[in-house]
Amino acid sequence: MVAIDQQLSVIRRGVSEIIPEADLIEKLKLNRPLRVKAGFDPTAPDLHFGHTVLLTKLKQFQDLGHEVLFLIGDFTGMIGDPTGKNVTRKPLTREAVIQNAETYQKQVFKILDPARTTVMFNSSWMGTKTAADLIRLASLSTVARMLERDDFSQRYQQGQSIAIHEFLYPLLQGYDSVAMEADIELGGTDQKFNLLMGRELQRHYGQSPQVVITLPLLEGLDGVHKMSKSLGNYIGIADSPTEMFGKIMSISDELMWRYYELLSDLSLVEIAILRTSATQGTNPRDIKIQLAREMVTRFHSSQAAETAHQDFVNRFQQGLMPEVREQVVLEIPTGGMPLANVLKMAGLVETTSEGLRAIDQGGVRINGEKITDKNFRVQPGTKHTYQVGKRRFADIHLHLQTLKS
Amino acid sequence: MVAIDQQLSVIRRGVSEIIPEADLIEKLKLNRPLRVKAGFDPTAPDLHFGHTVLLTKLKQFQDLGHEVLFLIGDFTGMIGDPTGKNVTRKPLTREAVIQNAETYQKQVFKILDPARTTVMFNSSWMGTKTAADLIRLASLSTVARMLERDDFSQRYQQGQSIAIHEFLYPLLQGYDSVAMEADIELGGTDQKFNLLMGRELQRHYGQSPQVVITLPLLEGLDGVHKMSKSLGNYIGIADSPTEMFGKIMSISDELMWRYYELLSDLSLVEIAILRTSATQGTNPRDIKIQLAREMVTRFHSSQAAETAHQDFVNRFQQGLMPEVREQVVLEIPTGGMPLANVLKMAGLVETTSEGLRAIDQGGVRINGEKITDKNFRVQPGTKHTYQVGKRRFADIHLHLQTLKS
Repeated sequence: MVAIDQQLSVIRRGVSEIIPEADLIEKLKLNRPLRVKAGFDPTAPDLHFGHTVLLTKLKQFQDLGHEVLFLIGDFTGMIGDPTGKNVTRKPLTREAVIQNAETYQKQVFKILDPARTTVMFNSSWMGTKTAADLIRLASLSTVARMLERDDFSQRYQQGQSIAIHEFLYPLLQGYDSVAMEADIELGGTDQKFNLLMGRELQRHYGQSPQVVITLPLLEGLDGVHKMSKSLGNYIGIADSPTEMFGKIMSISDELMWRYYELLSDLSLVEIAILRTSATQGTNPRDIKIQLAREMVTRFHSSQAAETAHQDFVNRFQQGLMPEVREQVVLEIPTGGMPLANVLKMAGLVETTSEGLRAIDQGGVRINGEKITDKNFRVQPGTKHTYQVGKRRFADIHLHLQTLKS
Repeated sequence: MVAIDQQLSVIRRGVSEIIPEADLIEKLKLNRPLRVKAGFDPTAPDLHFGHTVLLTKLKQFQDLGHEVLFLIGDFTGMIGDPTGKNVTRKPLTREAVIQNAETYQKQVFKILDPARTTVMFNSSWMGTKTAADLIRLASLSTVARMLERDDFSQRYQQGQSIAIHEFLYPLLQGYDSVAMEADIELGGTDQKFNLLMGRELQRHYGQSPQVVITLPLLEGLDGVHKMSKSLGNYIGIADSPTEMFGKIMSISDELMWRYYELLSDLSLVEIAILRTSATQGTNPRDIKIQLAREMVTRFHSSQAAETAHQDFVNRFQQGLMPEVREQVVLEIPTGGMPLANVLKMAGLVETTSEGLRAIDQGGVRINGEKITDKNFRVQPGTKHTYQVGKRRFADIHLHLQTLKS
């Protein structure tokens, strides 16, 4: 296996904490593939780049010769949210769990090596436990210990209710580590408390406690907030090549370096070389293109990356699109309006026929995408960049026509 | 069935709280035997009068035509104390539970009517529950609600640890009420929180919530502290007739009235008559004798009560024993000493032979109990009242002989 020092340098990259590093070194000295656990929510998986920070780290472990235990937490998922307060957490059926697991695998094996990955379901050990077993498990921790968890203590102090079963979930997650005989568990910094519970329970069950490695939460496109679906600042791993490429090109230079550290397959040395080249005059945009191509290649293909790159260059990089464009505000009826008419109203063409001809010849783009359908209708309530030929641009705001009095 | 007003007057007698009385009246109006639940600890049963407050109330319900559900909480008993901190709470085996249940029945059927009693074991419904079932149950209450319980809140505030499973026990007890479809649950005032949990859970499961009736904790012989084995201020229901009679005769007049209210089969009217007679000059001692006879009859027989009464009279009531007796301190060797020798050393007889003759003729008593064995040895470390014939008394303190230097 790879020398311990080298392994440590790979493992340390971009992580928040290794608890404790001394234990990690002891485990690496065992010179056998370590069992690296990571738990995933069994609800409909639709991963974004935020999730891939963890997956990327897991892949690094695999590249070092270790084994990934990919845990799908279906036991509690099949219970659902028993308080019934959260309507979005309906109990999952076994069929849904299996289907979600397949979707997961399709997604995560774009990063992970299937040959070094074991997919596990915690229902396979929790499903056979009795109420008495759970009481014994519950006896292994205390109320005070649970109230040390940040979110519990805040809710308790603010008088927000905490249902008793919420105190059981960290114990279940900890027990998973026992059942899986995990050597290492990875998770986000927000999971630290639960990951440490695994250490406590393994110790109780006479196992060597797992090393806990926490990973930072990835910032979204805005560079400020945690990447999340609900904030809309995410890059989905199912995004189209063009979309993914464009989103990566939109991030700040600073965030680009962070994405390199947390997501790229480039080594730290290679990244350092890129940084040096940037200080010596390389346009950061070109370094960003390299990241965008790597990511599109990872989740689609190198060909898709090439196309997306060309597409991006065609649209934004040939120096054709002016930074400042004419802003046009138009009112159109509820049902929308044919594109050619809008082009004429905005003054981008002289006549509707010229507009139709331009569409027909492939000379018309909306937000850089070519429109060749002469019957294409545009809708009110939109704002896009329209282009005719190589030089004519306008941002057209289409408002809904107000009733004439 | 008995008129509701009359039933209420019986039910109200001596109880601490009826929660809520309006619900009780509604239930009584159903005009059917109500299901009256009471839970008992499955550990080795050895009941004292403190426990019989509850049993006496249950018997009153039976006399009114209701059904007693006598619950043995064996499910948690068979788990034991899972923290392992309490060495005295080893898990009970099924055999031990069954044996304890038999011992219970032998004891409680001295008060309860077996024909109107159903003995239940909560393992019969909890034993088949899964961990997932328990999680759902745990979701029905909150951490804040549990911390309202006096002992939990005190322990939490004082930094004493509360294991998570302790929060599950009130829920289990509450769920028992659901499984048993209890109309009423009785318990000590210290059980109020857990009894109310039964109401909450029944409501959740669509049942009419049980009426909670709490009973005071009986004071022990000292009239101050709660009766308990560990304080030594108890009357065991397995105490010998003589012992039981003597202990009852030792309580204060005030405590006697409390015992009458909580333990006697006399109606409140009959007790009121006794009170009046006491104010009109009846010696309270005679009223106490009546209570002592009732209790010995209950737990042994009327014949045993008669004998214990006579015995008591012989010992303490024929005016023979002086209030102030000579105090004698003697030192005797480790192995003890023949009774006759002690009598001589204390000056109660002139010679050892006279002592032996007195024993032989039945003229020697220790604490009122006749000793007729001439070989009887007394032991160091004791203090008893010795009597020879009708007039000679002494309290003899026997210390262990110290080594002569």
